[in-house]
Amino acid sequence: MSIIDSKTGKVKKDYSVEDLIEKAKEMRAYSMVSLAAAGSGHTGGILSIIDIAAVLYLKHLNHDPVNPEWEDRDRVFWSVGHKAPALYVSLGIADYFPVDEVVKLRKLWSGFEGHPNRFRIPGIELSSGSLGQGLGVAVGCALNARLEEKDYKIYCILGDGELNEGSVWEAIMSAAHYKLDNLIAIVDRNRLQIDGPTEEVMKLEDLTAKWQSFGWQVLEMDGHNMSEILNTLEKASHIKDKPIVIIAHTIKGKDVSFAENVVGYHGICPKDGLTGAESLEKALQDINAPNFDQEKVNHLLKIACDYQEEVNRKVDQSMPKFSKDYWWNSRQIMKVEMIPTRFGFGDAIEELGSSDKVVTFGADITSSIKMDQFFSGHPERKERFFQMGIAEQNMTLAAAGFAKEGKVAFIGSYGVFVTGRNWDQIRTTLCYNNFDVKIANAHGGLSVGPDGATHQALEEISNMYYLPNMHIVVPADARETKKATIAVTEITGPAVIRYAREATPVFTKENSPYLFGIANIIRFREERENFIDAFEIKLSTEYRNEEEDIAIIACGPMVAEAMRASYVLKKEYNLETRVINMHTVKPIDKKSIIRATQEIGIVLSVEEHQKGGFGNIVAGVIATEKLYNTPFLFDMIGVNDKFGLSGSPWELLKVFGLTAEHIAKKAKKLYEKKN
Amino acid sequence: MSIIDSKTGKVKKDYSVEDLIEKAKEMRAYSMVSLAAAGSGHTGGILSIIDIAAVLYLKHLNHDPVNPEWEDRDRVFWSVGHKAPALYVSLGIADYFPVDEVVKLRKLWSGFEGHPNRFRIPGIELSSGSLGQGLGVAVGCALNARLEEKDYKIYCILGDGELNEGSVWEAIMSAAHYKLDNLIAIVDRNRLQIDGPTEEVMKLEDLTAKWQSFGWQVLEMDGHNMSEILNTLEKASHIKDKPIVIIAHTIKGKDVSFAENVVGYHGICPKDGLTGAESLEKALQDINAPNFDQEKVNHLLKIACDYQEEVNRKVDQSMPKFSKDYWWNSRQIMKVEMIPTRFGFGDAIEELGSSDKVVTFGADITSSIKMDQFFSGHPERKERFFQMGIAEQNMTLAAAGFAKEGKVAFIGSYGVFVTGRNWDQIRTTLCYNNFDVKIANAHGGLSVGPDGATHQALEEISNMYYLPNMHIVVPADARETKKATIAVTEITGPAVIRYAREATPVFTKENSPYLFGIANIIRFREERENFIDAFEIKLSTEYRNEEEDIAIIACGPMVAEAMRASYVLKKEYNLETRVINMHTVKPIDKKSIIRATQEIGIVLSVEEHQKGGFGNIVAGVIATEKLYNTPFLFDMIGVNDKFGLSGSPWELLKVFGLTAEHIAKKAKKLYEKKN
Repeated sequence: MSIIDSKTGKVKKDYSVEDLIEKAKEMRAYSMVSLAAAGSGHTGGILSIIDIAAVLYLKHLNHDPVNPEWEDRDRVFWSVGHKAPALYVSLGIADYFPVDEVVKLRKLWSGFEGHPNRFRIPGIELSSGSLGQGLGVAVGCALNARLEEKDYKIYCILGDGELNEGSVWEAIMSAAHYKLDNLIAIVDRNRLQIDGPTEEVMKLEDLTAKWQSFGWQVLEMDGHNMSEILNTLEKASHIKDKPIVIIAHTIKGKDVSFAENVVGYHGICPKDGLTGAESLEKALQDINAPNFDQEKVNHLLKIACDYQEEVNRKVDQSMPKFSKDYWWNSRQIMKVEMIPTRFGFGDAIEELGSSDKVVTFGADITSSIKMDQFFSGHPERKERFFQMGIAEQNMTLAAAGFAKEGKVAFIGSYGVFVTGRNWDQIRTTLCYNNFDVKIANAHGGLSVGPDGATHQALEEISNMYYLPNMHIVVPADARETKKATIAVTEITGPAVIRYAREATPVFTKENSPYLFGIANIIRFREERENFIDAFEIKLSTEYRNEEEDIAIIACGPMVAEAMRASYVLKKEYNLETRVINMHTVKPIDKKSIIRATQEIGIVLSVEEHQKGGFGNIVAGVIATEKLYNTPFLFDMIGVNDKFGLSGSPWELLKVFGLTAEHIAKKAKKLYEKKN
Repeated sequence: MSIIDSKTGKVKKDYSVEDLIEKAKEMRAYSMVSLAAAGSGHTGGILSIIDIAAVLYLKHLNHDPVNPEWEDRDRVFWSVGHKAPALYVSLGIADYFPVDEVVKLRKLWSGFEGHPNRFRIPGIELSSGSLGQGLGVAVGCALNARLEEKDYKIYCILGDGELNEGSVWEAIMSAAHYKLDNLIAIVDRNRLQIDGPTEEVMKLEDLTAKWQSFGWQVLEMDGHNMSEILNTLEKASHIKDKPIVIIAHTIKGKDVSFAENVVGYHGICPKDGLTGAESLEKALQDINAPNFDQEKVNHLLKIACDYQEEVNRKVDQSMPKFSKDYWWNSRQIMKVEMIPTRFGFGDAIEELGSSDKVVTFGADITSSIKMDQFFSGHPERKERFFQMGIAEQNMTLAAAGFAKEGKVAFIGSYGVFVTGRNWDQIRTTLCYNNFDVKIANAHGGLSVGPDGATHQALEEISNMYYLPNMHIVVPADARETKKATIAVTEITGPAVIRYAREATPVFTKENSPYLFGIANIIRFREERENFIDAFEIKLSTEYRNEEEDIAIIACGPMVAEAMRASYVLKKEYNLETRVINMHTVKPIDKKSIIRATQEIGIVLSVEEHQKGGFGNIVAGVIATEKLYNTPFLFDMIGVNDKFGLSGSPWELLKVFGLTAEHIAKKAKKLYEKKN
């Protein structure tokens, strides 16, 4: 069928193969403009799936854009959430909403999240983004359709790299067990994943044999040939008694010359406004979509630009205001160098790599999290690096196999995947066995920005803290991340190093004190030429009480915000603040917390995390260690029990209330409550 | 080779095929006596693997029992931790320790844990118990051996049901990718898992084709034919360029007539001391091991019995003492009915099942967690029950597929697996999508007893609490579990119901107040004929301050202990206690906590969980909500940042300090600290 009126059953719109070819060009063009306007996104995989998406949404599926919840519609699950723009343009072209809207991609509050959110855009069946989950949901949906005796079909779009995930094979096994012939999986077989060609990262071939051995009917097609796509989908819908997988042979970056079959174009986008070899201009030239002249492009970019300006205004309005601007680098005295904490991890892993005892692992995100620094300048170490594909569970276990034999093994990925996807493996195999596996918990916190909620790790501290034998460090800047990473190799047993993607202020120096397990006390002393020289840093054990007005206990990049807050509090209200950098979260420096409570009595915890994951640990120390009559006030700043959003990292810190301005405001309020 | 002297390289002991047959009989006999003495364990799978274990440990492996850490030994990973007794008897017969010791199986502090702990018994390569993890570790170990240019072989023993787990397929894929010909997996293909025949629970066939398609060399053998086992292992060790799997066709319960091929004998044991059809006597008769006469059996049982008496003494000594015995049912006034909270879940799911909207899922542990009550008396509901095998990730996702279409979907398993194995699926697919999936978090806490640490869920509250949209109930008794289970179907979104396996006191009544989100206040009033009538229960919102001396905030079966503690405190010290039953942990009843702090000022939290998972949440509420000058003391009782142990449920509560006696002692101490 096609796009139909769910009330009358009549076809609303029908497209010929020639129409589809033109529409797919238009969809590619919209995608490229959106990616360029967003400044990030997954060019390669969007372009490889778009012809299939065009056939599905404009021709093959039964659906009704004015009635997205029509109960007899075919369902499509995009297990590959990162291809969201292809889904958005499909829905837009199919008239679920004005397609021009998609240029707000990845912008704050637009709803066009980096990975799809079903509550924000009509026509999305599932909020997704963590790979390997869509097929299982599709299995449930197909079982339900059978239970309800419904005729609609269930489609699931998978990436090929995604097939590394064991959860996919659980779903594959179960679909065959239940002989779900109403379920059609489509694998976008573009043969590239982030770390390289699929067959080099984690061999998938003979892929057809794998699916067949699991009891599926396998069809193959050229994923860029409209007639073939149509015919294969049609054929798939008549197969009985087994689930069907269509292996779609595609080209990553298809039709954009500079992105075609280029590994690097998994996660980057053409440059807006630039001319030259990898510009948006060149991409649009290559695509050659009808009606996509410069005027049209300018019109779209203006929509994006106007929207962003509106966002900027709203974000700015939401910020607490003071007599001056205290934002980073806004004035000479606020000058700091900004370096992502991940760079510190990279430097450490490079240094640690000189020991033969150290081995490292990749989960198809090796370079972004800086694990590649282990071997990039040291090719002879490549034999001690093991690529495990997108398979966090197995990476954890394999690392344990090395640790068991005396190695110090580093695994890493996005924090949410490398502590959450493999939680039970961490518990049973790493912690219960007390293995020397160190977890590079990269991209922790909101600062992954435009990727959105699914990729913003906000629960790792609570997830890991209550595991026996575990250690947790959440270093405050790039330099401290290097020290912390080295420090956890000097203790026995599993450890988590939480660090982030976005550049944040570097405020420690090479000779700043750092001891694993001992918090640092940071005090604003006097204004200097640049921000960091205005502060003094001491080990908590060496710090003498100055009877400050307020204590702020923070970890990670929130420490720099706390420092800036202490500056604001001093300048605006003449209040003295003791900033406690709790770089080691487990074991936590109890003495520094209880001293702050007794000596100051106004304590604020700050975390780039679900509020309480860290703050409740601090509260627990205060409540159990204090004397009966010790007076104090305590409050917490953190993400308030909600999921993140797409947006720029600093926008998110602002709208989630995690900046120095918010800290200063709350600290002042807490201080006033006392008096 | 065989058992050798690692210093000289000489064979220490060699066995003929005939010897091995006799030794395997002895190993079966030891296993049966140990299981009978333990009173629990996995008869079926132990008997199916034991011939293979005999050949490995007595003939095929290179190892040296006096030098268990010999670096050139072959490694064996028992991914199937529940077959631990087969491993223990193998090591014992091979002279790692006196084999008679194994009759201390599953007893407190014996080291012969329900699932293996590598720190306690020599010769164990890996602490295991959560299925699907051993092969990944073996992959790491094999990669390390290659890196180190070592010749030893790495074996991994897998169950067939275990192959439902996706993590296994991740490991399978990676082993082939790396062409690990030093890795030999052995699948104990006994064709039965807990919920039934493997092909009915989750179809595995064509299993050979599956492994082959993943790039492995497949060998098959009769797992009870010694010569064939020997020859196959020998053959496997010469295959090059790919990993090898041996599919061992075995009989579950082999050689014990009443257990052979009986599904029910997965997790039960022959009855000690009984004569009759399913007795230890009959099992030993069937096995007909040399030198295993009644005298020998009596000798072994006496070792077990003496050991248990010593444990009893030590446990008793560790308990706080009072003027009287306040233990459950020790006197008429301490009389209570004991029912496992899981029974309350069973009753609720049976009742809820009358609605067509409710669907349920199985993960191969359906009956033990009482999920089967959904359909057992209602065969017509069987179409709304979906068996997913041992695949918690996929179970979670499939349930989401139903919830998406408007169903209320119940999934369940051991708490550690159904909140930990699938944590990322719960986060992204359940919570971010806000799906109506209710998680039956069964066997929560230490009360799983003899299964040991791997199966004792002590981290679910912290794991789940910080997830947006999640709800958590931890009901206090069987009756309240029924109410809580029904209550979470009346709210929208995901929820966790934490309940336990062991029988615990029932103290609420049908008409006791219960409101989701509102804590109950429980007060000891006066001695009555039986325990529960001595207490009054009110909603916290309806309770008036009585200026008690102490507040105890607890959840789950710890509430009954807190009640008993309040009785002890009254009788021994004339102290009044406000017991707060925090049956809803998220959203938590903040008012009841802050009132206890302000009105009483002495607050103790009690959790059958890693200490602080619950207690720090309570501390966070107190610290953020209290006034500056509110005086208070707070402490927590919980498991002190360590893993559990095998032992009986009540032994564990005693030695981990979670009984009323410990609570009363600590509460008294806290009270004294104030004065």
